[in-house]
Amino acid sequence: MTFSVQVKVMPLKELLDPQGKAVMSGLRNLGLQSVGDVRVGKNITLQVEAESAEQARLLAEEASKKLLANPVMEYFEVSVQ
Amino acid sequence: MTFSVQVKVMPLKELLDPQGKAVMSGLRNLGLQSVGDVRVGKNITLQVEAESAEQARLLAEEASKKLLANPVMEYFEVSVQ
Repeated sequence: MTFSVQVKVMPLKELLDPQGKAVMSGLRNLGLQSVGDVRVGKNITLQVEAESAEQARLLAEEASKKLLANPVMEYFEVSVQ
Repeated sequence: MTFSVQVKVMPLKELLDPQGKAVMSGLRNLGLQSVGDVRVGKNITLQVEAESAEQARLLAEEASKKLLANPVMEYFEVSVQ
């Protein structure tokens, strides 16, 4: 069975996010003053061949640890759809 | 009131996604053969000051149209938390 798995990779909350800061000042320059903190990360969708949703989740977690996320700077969240 | 809004920006389904293809072959080289199609997009979280969740959503949609997403290559989804 094929599962669609979504992996969200975001910069750790403790770290500055220069890309987010740049986007925030860009939005403010466009007149959107009510936008506060902005953080920019990655969203990765995988089609995973697995026997169960749980197995698909484990596989996506393995992929995240091995390649998709850098644990020094990022955390990830996996959700199976 | 401050709302946390999440904007997912993904490459249009009709388009090739070279970054996704690169990630897919990377995962396969690492032994994860059961991963099929991979697509890589952005995930942006905004803290928005607004009177209602609906207003926060409209503001995030405006931000997405003006700056966050390139409609020629990407689509976006807004969700208010």
